[in-house]
Amino acid sequence: MAHEMRGMTSLALVRAIAAGEISAREACLASVARIRASNPAINAFTRCCTARALREAEAIDARRARGERLPPLAGLPYAVKDLFDVAGEVTHAGSKLNRQHRPAAQDAFLVARIQAGGAVLLGRLNMDEYAYGFTTENTHYGATRNPHDLTRSAGGSSGGCGAAVAAGQVGMALGSDTNGSIRVPASFCGIWGLKPTFGRLSRRGSYPFVHSIDHLGPMADSVESLALAYDVLQAPDPLDPGCHALRVQPVGSALQQGIEGLRVGLLGGYFDEHATASARAAVRSAAQVLGANDQLAWPDAALGRAAAFIISASEGGSLHLQDLRTQVQEFEPLSVDRFIAGALLPAAWYLRAQRFRQSYRDQVNALFRHWDLLLAPATPVAAPVLGSEWLDINGTSMPTRASIGLLTQPISLAGCPVVAAPIWPTGTGGLPIAVQIIAAPWREDLALRAAWALQAAGCAHLKPVEI
Amino acid sequence: MAHEMRGMTSLALVRAIAAGEISAREACLASVARIRASNPAINAFTRCCTARALREAEAIDARRARGERLPPLAGLPYAVKDLFDVAGEVTHAGSKLNRQHRPAAQDAFLVARIQAGGAVLLGRLNMDEYAYGFTTENTHYGATRNPHDLTRSAGGSSGGCGAAVAAGQVGMALGSDTNGSIRVPASFCGIWGLKPTFGRLSRRGSYPFVHSIDHLGPMADSVESLALAYDVLQAPDPLDPGCHALRVQPVGSALQQGIEGLRVGLLGGYFDEHATASARAAVRSAAQVLGANDQLAWPDAALGRAAAFIISASEGGSLHLQDLRTQVQEFEPLSVDRFIAGALLPAAWYLRAQRFRQSYRDQVNALFRHWDLLLAPATPVAAPVLGSEWLDINGTSMPTRASIGLLTQPISLAGCPVVAAPIWPTGTGGLPIAVQIIAAPWREDLALRAAWALQAAGCAHLKPVEI
Repeated sequence: MAHEMRGMTSLALVRAIAAGEISAREACLASVARIRASNPAINAFTRCCTARALREAEAIDARRARGERLPPLAGLPYAVKDLFDVAGEVTHAGSKLNRQHRPAAQDAFLVARIQAGGAVLLGRLNMDEYAYGFTTENTHYGATRNPHDLTRSAGGSSGGCGAAVAAGQVGMALGSDTNGSIRVPASFCGIWGLKPTFGRLSRRGSYPFVHSIDHLGPMADSVESLALAYDVLQAPDPLDPGCHALRVQPVGSALQQGIEGLRVGLLGGYFDEHATASARAAVRSAAQVLGANDQLAWPDAALGRAAAFIISASEGGSLHLQDLRTQVQEFEPLSVDRFIAGALLPAAWYLRAQRFRQSYRDQVNALFRHWDLLLAPATPVAAPVLGSEWLDINGTSMPTRASIGLLTQPISLAGCPVVAAPIWPTGTGGLPIAVQIIAAPWREDLALRAAWALQAAGCAHLKPVEI
Repeated sequence: MAHEMRGMTSLALVRAIAAGEISAREACLASVARIRASNPAINAFTRCCTARALREAEAIDARRARGERLPPLAGLPYAVKDLFDVAGEVTHAGSKLNRQHRPAAQDAFLVARIQAGGAVLLGRLNMDEYAYGFTTENTHYGATRNPHDLTRSAGGSSGGCGAAVAAGQVGMALGSDTNGSIRVPASFCGIWGLKPTFGRLSRRGSYPFVHSIDHLGPMADSVESLALAYDVLQAPDPLDPGCHALRVQPVGSALQQGIEGLRVGLLGGYFDEHATASARAAVRSAAQVLGANDQLAWPDAALGRAAAFIISASEGGSLHLQDLRTQVQEFEPLSVDRFIAGALLPAAWYLRAQRFRQSYRDQVNALFRHWDLLLAPATPVAAPVLGSEWLDINGTSMPTRASIGLLTQPISLAGCPVVAAPIWPTGTGGLPIAVQIIAAPWREDLALRAAWALQAAGCAHLKPVEI
């Protein structure tokens, strides 16, 4: 059974479970087997919750047996980045220090939503410590390895999510994205990722990194699963003051409306300069399907990235200030210097970055008077080799861990929703690079429609892995 | 005529103008004469706009001549703190540096509201430079002197407003309050002041000090004028993202509903410890009228004040960073050190203060489940002598300029609306001390009803000055 299921997308699996062809328990056990077989190689899961998974799966099967109507994700195996609270477990957020924390009293809001949607939680996934990184090189829990090339990074900070979905361990995962942490692993692992509009999904019960930029969102093996998960996640949450969703606008049914009439532009300038030839090729292939011909400039992209850096370092450093003072040796050596530097930044810099952000957002939003969607590469390069310190971007040598987010940071600072679509350009040795499909705030539906068109055209898709 | 009008409250004046007994032009000229006679002594006005005042007054008279219904403040002379934009004039905000700025293209939102309400703008009023101070000791424009004792401070930073109303130059003034800048001059000058709920009145067209704590509000010679002005000022302003007013809730008609059934508490602990005997006596007399017997503690008052300090210094310092770097010698010597220190504070401190503020606000708001109104002194002492560097508060020597806001800062950080009611306790040598009437957010109506009750009982009121 497990073997049979291996080639199935999560969408096919959900349909088969709904049709009674496969039980949720069988799907769950297949996922457990797949994790056992592949996790030693890729190190995506840091902890499995098999007992809970079986309970959830059996509850689904019992409902079907009683003839109940099943929820939309019934039986779908999924997992969460280790910054979502899971009732009864300690939320490590990739750190050693958080091991001293008490277990979470309840599931994170989005975990509870997804559970109500019928999906089955298989466990927690590796990440950069406290989400501060783009490579999931985690000294405490080991690096997550890219399923398409085990010597390479899976991206980060939601690298466990990227690898787990790419390797077929689960069909969907919940990640977080502050400066690119969903889009980068989607790009390096060749899966679909959605970073929703800032403030659209509740963050209650998730471990924060940068309160004023953190987003949560789904990653999946197909556009349909991504949209289904997103529709299940959407809900107002009066208990999260950062959640601005007042009503739910389901996107699932709109996916196949096509892209007729949508004005799709290409981000030039900064986004072109910081992309390698392969990243440009990925955008060109998407542009062809979506009928995008014209380049435009994203206003102040470099300043936007600088502001995102300052805000991230300040808020991150501030959040961990007490531990930095007293237990600095317990932090991840690969990011502790950035936390310390962030804790020392003057408030005047932080406030200037926040002031800049307001006018920046206004300028960015103005673009969408003329455009429905904008395309840019998600990463300048395909997945780098683990441990590499320098990237070559068009002849310029740049520090790897800081530069992977070059093309994602300016977008998330503005708060626009983005779907990362996995494309397989030439010149990467068979590795993927994602294209960011960027929409106006609250227009996830448009980005997902374009993503569906790319998938339908065969332009963006997952590739099987050999593990 | 001018002489006759001297004893009239602004309310009586507005009624006499409405009745046709006095023309708006006569009221305006009387105000001009009063300013000419008294301003050399008190230095409240930094600039008069007599031509505009006469135009506005004559327009009111013309409307009455045409038999039009007059707006609620028709003919009332008022003035504004020198941080409200006045079309065609440069907004100095008490600084020398802003003299280089361009004249304002239009009136501030609240000035336009008040003008539409029929009031007549007489000019701009002195303040601490950039609103950073509690004494209106302004080196560039001279100190404003207290009309009740010219050797003493009028309070600040809206000291010009306090002195102008106390001296009968105008019946109403618009001020601003970040850490107490309306309530302190109301206390020292013995007039009424209203600091509305944070976010309730638009700040568009005013010069900022601390964006995340700044409030604007009216100061007046009677509760009725205060409430009339506030009702005219209330309006949603979609162009000010900081203005959260969605609808207007007029309070004027509710004033005389009385205080039957209102649960009024007394702030003890921190607010008692930092008050001199006279300040306590002022609260006692208000408590008697309002039937308040029970003391309660305001949660984390000292921390609230510390957080307000850090946020104010950081945002203020950040706002003026460029000028501090290049033209530091042009700043007010009495506050420049605080701006410099604020510009150097670490972002981690600022962010911690902002995080604290969230839970602090929740704790404070919880008080209003059990209480409708809370009373506390507005200042620990009556007006100090100008130039004094140290205050004695119950045997402890404290720096004057930093300590005057001890009792106001914790309240504004939480965002609650406050009416400052002028009371004349014994032991001050005939000087006033105001009592803060504190309500839950958006319940200005309750604070104003209690203020009216204090006025009706003769407990709180203005006193004539001899200048």
